[in-house]
Amino acid sequence: MDTKYVYFFGDGATEGTAKMRDLLGGKGAGLAEMTNVGIPVPPGFTITTEACVYYYQNGDFPPGLEEEVEIHLGRVEQALERRFGDVDTPLLLSVRSGSRVSMPGMMDTVLNIGLNDKTAAGLARDMGDPRPAYDSYRRFVQMYGDVVLGLKPETEDDVDPFEEIIERMKNDRGVALDVELTAEDLQALVKQFKAAVKERKGRDFPAEPREQLWGAIRSVFASWDNPRAIAYRQLNNIPDEWGTAANVQSMVFGNLGDDSGSGVAFTRNPATGEKGLYGEFLVNAQGEDVVAGIRTPLPIAALAEEWPDIYGELDEAAVKLETHFRDVQDLEFTVERGRLWLLQTRAGKRTAHAALTIAIDMVEEGLMNREEALLSMEPEQLNQFLRPVFNPVQKEAAVREGRVIAKGLNAGPGAAAGKVVFNAADALEFAERGEKVILVRAETSPEDIKGMSASQGILTERGGMTSHAALVGRQMGKVCVVGCSDIHIDYKKRRFAAPGDVVVKEGEEISIDGTTGEVLLGALETEPSEIKRVLLDETLAPEDSPLYRKFAEFMSWADERRRLMVWTNADQPDQTAAAVKFGAQGIGLCRTEHMFFGGDRITAMRKMILARDEAGRRAALEELRPMQQEDFAGIFRALGGRPAVIRTLDPPLHEFLPHEPAQIEKLAEQMGVPKKELVAKIRTLREQNPMLGHRGCRLGIVYPEITEMQTRAIIGAAVDCLREGLEVRPEIMIPLVSHVNELYNQILVVRRVAEEIMDAEGVTIPYKVGTMIEVPRSALTADEIALVADFFSFGTNDLTQTTFGFSRDDAPVFLRYYVDHMILKDNPFETVDVNGVGLLMEIAVEKGRVANPQLEIGICGEHGGDPATIAYCHRIGLDYVSCSPYRVPVARLAAAQAAIKAAE
Amino acid sequence: MDTKYVYFFGDGATEGTAKMRDLLGGKGAGLAEMTNVGIPVPPGFTITTEACVYYYQNGDFPPGLEEEVEIHLGRVEQALERRFGDVDTPLLLSVRSGSRVSMPGMMDTVLNIGLNDKTAAGLARDMGDPRPAYDSYRRFVQMYGDVVLGLKPETEDDVDPFEEIIERMKNDRGVALDVELTAEDLQALVKQFKAAVKERKGRDFPAEPREQLWGAIRSVFASWDNPRAIAYRQLNNIPDEWGTAANVQSMVFGNLGDDSGSGVAFTRNPATGEKGLYGEFLVNAQGEDVVAGIRTPLPIAALAEEWPDIYGELDEAAVKLETHFRDVQDLEFTVERGRLWLLQTRAGKRTAHAALTIAIDMVEEGLMNREEALLSMEPEQLNQFLRPVFNPVQKEAAVREGRVIAKGLNAGPGAAAGKVVFNAADALEFAERGEKVILVRAETSPEDIKGMSASQGILTERGGMTSHAALVGRQMGKVCVVGCSDIHIDYKKRRFAAPGDVVVKEGEEISIDGTTGEVLLGALETEPSEIKRVLLDETLAPEDSPLYRKFAEFMSWADERRRLMVWTNADQPDQTAAAVKFGAQGIGLCRTEHMFFGGDRITAMRKMILARDEAGRRAALEELRPMQQEDFAGIFRALGGRPAVIRTLDPPLHEFLPHEPAQIEKLAEQMGVPKKELVAKIRTLREQNPMLGHRGCRLGIVYPEITEMQTRAIIGAAVDCLREGLEVRPEIMIPLVSHVNELYNQILVVRRVAEEIMDAEGVTIPYKVGTMIEVPRSALTADEIALVADFFSFGTNDLTQTTFGFSRDDAPVFLRYYVDHMILKDNPFETVDVNGVGLLMEIAVEKGRVANPQLEIGICGEHGGDPATIAYCHRIGLDYVSCSPYRVPVARLAAAQAAIKAAE
Repeated sequence: MDTKYVYFFGDGATEGTAKMRDLLGGKGAGLAEMTNVGIPVPPGFTITTEACVYYYQNGDFPPGLEEEVEIHLGRVEQALERRFGDVDTPLLLSVRSGSRVSMPGMMDTVLNIGLNDKTAAGLARDMGDPRPAYDSYRRFVQMYGDVVLGLKPETEDDVDPFEEIIERMKNDRGVALDVELTAEDLQALVKQFKAAVKERKGRDFPAEPREQLWGAIRSVFASWDNPRAIAYRQLNNIPDEWGTAANVQSMVFGNLGDDSGSGVAFTRNPATGEKGLYGEFLVNAQGEDVVAGIRTPLPIAALAEEWPDIYGELDEAAVKLETHFRDVQDLEFTVERGRLWLLQTRAGKRTAHAALTIAIDMVEEGLMNREEALLSMEPEQLNQFLRPVFNPVQKEAAVREGRVIAKGLNAGPGAAAGKVVFNAADALEFAERGEKVILVRAETSPEDIKGMSASQGILTERGGMTSHAALVGRQMGKVCVVGCSDIHIDYKKRRFAAPGDVVVKEGEEISIDGTTGEVLLGALETEPSEIKRVLLDETLAPEDSPLYRKFAEFMSWADERRRLMVWTNADQPDQTAAAVKFGAQGIGLCRTEHMFFGGDRITAMRKMILARDEAGRRAALEELRPMQQEDFAGIFRALGGRPAVIRTLDPPLHEFLPHEPAQIEKLAEQMGVPKKELVAKIRTLREQNPMLGHRGCRLGIVYPEITEMQTRAIIGAAVDCLREGLEVRPEIMIPLVSHVNELYNQILVVRRVAEEIMDAEGVTIPYKVGTMIEVPRSALTADEIALVADFFSFGTNDLTQTTFGFSRDDAPVFLRYYVDHMILKDNPFETVDVNGVGLLMEIAVEKGRVANPQLEIGICGEHGGDPATIAYCHRIGLDYVSCSPYRVPVARLAAAQAAIKAAE
Repeated sequence: MDTKYVYFFGDGATEGTAKMRDLLGGKGAGLAEMTNVGIPVPPGFTITTEACVYYYQNGDFPPGLEEEVEIHLGRVEQALERRFGDVDTPLLLSVRSGSRVSMPGMMDTVLNIGLNDKTAAGLARDMGDPRPAYDSYRRFVQMYGDVVLGLKPETEDDVDPFEEIIERMKNDRGVALDVELTAEDLQALVKQFKAAVKERKGRDFPAEPREQLWGAIRSVFASWDNPRAIAYRQLNNIPDEWGTAANVQSMVFGNLGDDSGSGVAFTRNPATGEKGLYGEFLVNAQGEDVVAGIRTPLPIAALAEEWPDIYGELDEAAVKLETHFRDVQDLEFTVERGRLWLLQTRAGKRTAHAALTIAIDMVEEGLMNREEALLSMEPEQLNQFLRPVFNPVQKEAAVREGRVIAKGLNAGPGAAAGKVVFNAADALEFAERGEKVILVRAETSPEDIKGMSASQGILTERGGMTSHAALVGRQMGKVCVVGCSDIHIDYKKRRFAAPGDVVVKEGEEISIDGTTGEVLLGALETEPSEIKRVLLDETLAPEDSPLYRKFAEFMSWADERRRLMVWTNADQPDQTAAAVKFGAQGIGLCRTEHMFFGGDRITAMRKMILARDEAGRRAALEELRPMQQEDFAGIFRALGGRPAVIRTLDPPLHEFLPHEPAQIEKLAEQMGVPKKELVAKIRTLREQNPMLGHRGCRLGIVYPEITEMQTRAIIGAAVDCLREGLEVRPEIMIPLVSHVNELYNQILVVRRVAEEIMDAEGVTIPYKVGTMIEVPRSALTADEIALVADFFSFGTNDLTQTTFGFSRDDAPVFLRYYVDHMILKDNPFETVDVNGVGLLMEIAVEKGRVANPQLEIGICGEHGGDPATIAYCHRIGLDYVSCSPYRVPVARLAAAQAAIKAAE
């Protein structure tokens, strides 16, 4: 046979290289790479993916594989001076899967192979303590019995048969924890485990180490085709033909006496970014003991004193690895009888502060170039620089004291504390008295906007990451925890209940952590972030903040590298100003309806809706116009000449009317209409599926006077600003277009009114008119639509709803099940679904640009702030992404990363 | 100039031919064709579309056109011995637009050109009566003033300025009707009209005939670019560059004395199909007098006696035209001083009975081939052969007596009478007492199904042609009038109100005409149709019904010619049996949820929904299984080996729960659960947008036990029938799939259960598993889905909802406006939207067939019975269409017509 199926690694004699990923799998290639750099890795060998492919094609291992494995096993034995199956110096092995691309947790692993009654006794002698040896044996039999011999629970509700035996043993011994079982107990467990295998599977547990090894290898190959792995591949477009490699590696022990030990170390401090080894270790212990926290580990500095040689070796390895991987590493190591082994290395997780310092430092040190530095930061982490935080000491104390009473979805990051209120009116009232409040609602609606604005934070019982509360909260920069089903609100009694008989009444203080989703009793102190103090509050000068200077430098690298513009979703001057400070280059979505909820405004709006004829509607709209015009002027001023995409009225009219009897009665009085008539009108407007109802451009078409008024306000504001010497670039956006004729109809209205005003005022405003692409039909007929549109903006939220037929509000019930059961990879409301929604976007971009090469194309759905979606938008050639103000830095970095990755 | 811009027609000297449609427009080519066949058409000439194109490119008529027109005008004068502008023998002209394809009503027409004070006086002398002459003059000035001079209302609410003047005149004269105005009044009107033109438009009304003519031609050309015409072209994909021709034709007069007259005639009797001229005429009258009904016309037979030569000439023309156009013709003719002129010919509208007789006769006579015969019948007309009809005498009397109290949408054709009831329970109760009832509801829901079944007909206040009532009503073959907003139901008082203070109480009798949408007071007698008596009731033997024999022969021609199979939507054995008799070749959609609404069943269903865990759900489902299995067995028996596509549970679970307090209380008692718990459960299940909520396969995925039970019932029933020696072909359809993994998940459940049963029973059932394509994403990813699906079935109703973002229930509010204002051509819920929804269908067919060449593809949405949609389905290569049982003959004919037209 010519084909080589086995590749050795470790002990300076490695056969593979980093480039042999297809043949050795990701893990195998990584192990080869580490040993080639000179890192002491426990020796072993990789059985190639080709062997796996052969196995599937022929139903058996390739001829000659056994001999190859024997040869390589001999090299491992030689390197470690241990022998596989030997009683005195037993060598134990692990077998792990590893395919070309990582499929985390989908395939099988078996540890501690080579143990039987005799080698376990030998190991016990070797360790000088029988308990850890028999614990390894117990774990091995359990793992092998499950993975290789298939002794598993039969249905989802069944208990694990091994755990059942352990539970029985603990009951017999009257102990609560596994660690309380003695060496004898563990030996007895092994016997019972084996008996269970014999009884349930009709076969003896294999005592022969080589039989164990081949069983594990076979099992790892077979696990390539288990249902979960198949589903995962289907979901991630991984070809079935690739197969997996099997990595056979020696096990090393840190618990062989006082010259052994285990530890973990970072190459730089993961909290501050400071350079130098940071971590902890335990003498005479395995890695899991360090993590378990039963014994208190020593700081890594102690190692330098106790075992200076080992520390020097570790430090050298750390520098090598950091240099090689060009990033901070998180290492696991074991010292077996004075010999250092590195078990694992990976990029180290770090706080945003550390990430920033490390990125800047490593570029200065020449370890990274700027592109690598940009890629080293998770875009989401940038959030941490802008949001208020809890006083860390108080937060820790609160957690320790058990004051965390519930947990929801972390929809709007940051920290907030205040008195609980249950409706928007109370929020306003409390806030007017100067009190800080947390608005707690079952869910929010547009009527709550003023109240949300007056609150420190928002907590809702229902709704997902893209619910109204989450969406508006994020846009306002509010701390926001949604979908917190742990709590139950009783509006009548003005209180909510939480698990453990906790009851929180109106006026009592709580704190919510929008970064973690936690709800805590009592008010914790919050602090504005340093970057925010410089950028927005201006309570700190840039020159006094080294952190700000690093942040600004880092962001400037991102801006140099990205091609996508980053715009923002904002509908108030202050939001707009903040977004511009965060780097927004325009407004991608100004939702005009948010302007209709103030006191006078909602009244005029309701007058308009309840008017009996066009004249009545026009009169009410004329009341609204000056207010809208002033809003727009404020926004134009805050933008300083940047473009503003302003959407005409979108929500169904019933959203502006009250639904509770008392409010209806009040409104009837206010409007001077009989209550009966008002109730009838509200009933007429009610819809079965409001999402697909009379909204969007359908309103402006049936009631052109609405579009007229809004155009008048926009162009009027533009004229006002122009007179002030400002530049203005309004872009009027028609929502929910499905047929070109809808857009055409509205464009005619807009152009007529705009020309009228410009003629009368004798000025020219360079305005555009375009459309949202938010239902499949507009994407499919983008060529027709682009002929009349100046721009497209993808409303991916509605586009996702209609493409899947998923209601954003109702889908959480099954979407969670879908993601858990790998029917969908991601929640399509968080990350754009590339195969379906994305295909429509690509069709729209392609058809649109062919029909109108000048077409400006962006995205303004909530997806516009999602890094994965931003990468996709870069790929398909959009001009900009638009997201909520506080996500602008995230989007700038994500856009830069997308450009860097696309160039690779 | 080489280009010829003017083509003569009439008087045996025609220059154009039928093939010159592009140059002469449709109307011009038709006039040329008629004269070439030898039909006496009033002479005239066509100014070509090229002249119009020149006019648009150069802003003026082509050089030389005036001379060409003069020459041809001379030929017209010669032929008629009249002169344009002459006082003694005035020639009057019409100018009509005519483009390549018909754009009905979109462009301009001017009649009676050539009249001024002098020629009008001449015409009066010629007629021997000033009134008709001055009436023509008045009409001319009004039409010319509006069309050419642009004196129109300024806004939609304004009155027409000419009508305003007429109204004032009638007030002055104290008369009510236009015909009561005298010749002098009319002359005065002309003066006032002209003065109004002068005042409002600042120009004199042109007295010079040639100026009038050129103004009219210019106006017809200009009307090609009026906003309505542009919108129409955009909607119908007609290129702007085509331009229109202008047809200038002489006016002829039937009111020049007793040797003149006008009439209309059919070449065969339009009610019975009997061969021979059929119609009526009036001596000394214009065409409009025949239609106006002020004088009673004579039957055409009288013409044979009075003017045998004219009659002979007319008869000859009729035969020529019938032979030429190969179809029955509807003619308008005028006799001017003993000379016959044919003004218009078109295919004659006829009743279904006449259409059938004519088709059969003409094929026998060799006038048509079978394909032409098939094309001569409107598919919709076949409905008339199956539906009960009112006793025609009673119906006529009722209309005359003003007993028609309201009108709605004609959703389910036929005639029904009965006592009014307002809920399903009462319908059942009345029906059990043997009383005929009409179920009157605001709208219906699945809970009403039993009640609908027990009724003669259904009348709803709300909902469109594809509302629940319409859909289920049609499937049941019920007479159905929906969206009858004229009525207002008061459930509490058990009555409804109709316009004119009519109040109808429970138990009072009404009749509804599902063919016209009329609602009548009192019970009219109904009669089953002859064809139904043969096919379904079997109260008439086929050999005793010549009509049936014609029907059967005609349908056999259709079956020979079509390629599409026709399946049916049915979920009861009796519906299935009827559909098979109407020619259905399988079931394309069996909605299993309709089976869950019986007494025991709904209880078990509710138990399932309210169960606290899987075990409880399984127990309730086990109660349902035997009932479902028996339903399926009944359907399989009725099908006799034809395939049956059975859809797993589709609607959201809340549809099965009551919503009114009293019913909820009752259910809580029945189920033995606290009312509070039940209310909470109902609240949990409530959805914002149920259409996009937890329904379809999303139910079967989260609760696999539902799919298991349904599979068990389907395969179980198949085994039962197989044991009886029957052939069975079940096809299990998974609804609302958006991602292949959803289908894959459900297929695994179906296959596991099916294999289990077949193994246990030792038989093999040849079953298929496939999916609905009813959301855009499944169409877009059809290649992925087709790999695991045996068949696709387009659910075009939901696909239309999601592609447009239109809720079927909520859209009527704006859809009506859209269709009225030409934003959409058709209601997309009635005829498939080819550019959007159709594009998705084409993508799905193409991608699906590439991935799986064996893929069976059909359509089961309500569109499956729409002839235009059927033609589209033929074109894109579907295998079958599925429609409600009573539409099967319609679909068979439509499929044949599609095949014939596609082959042309």
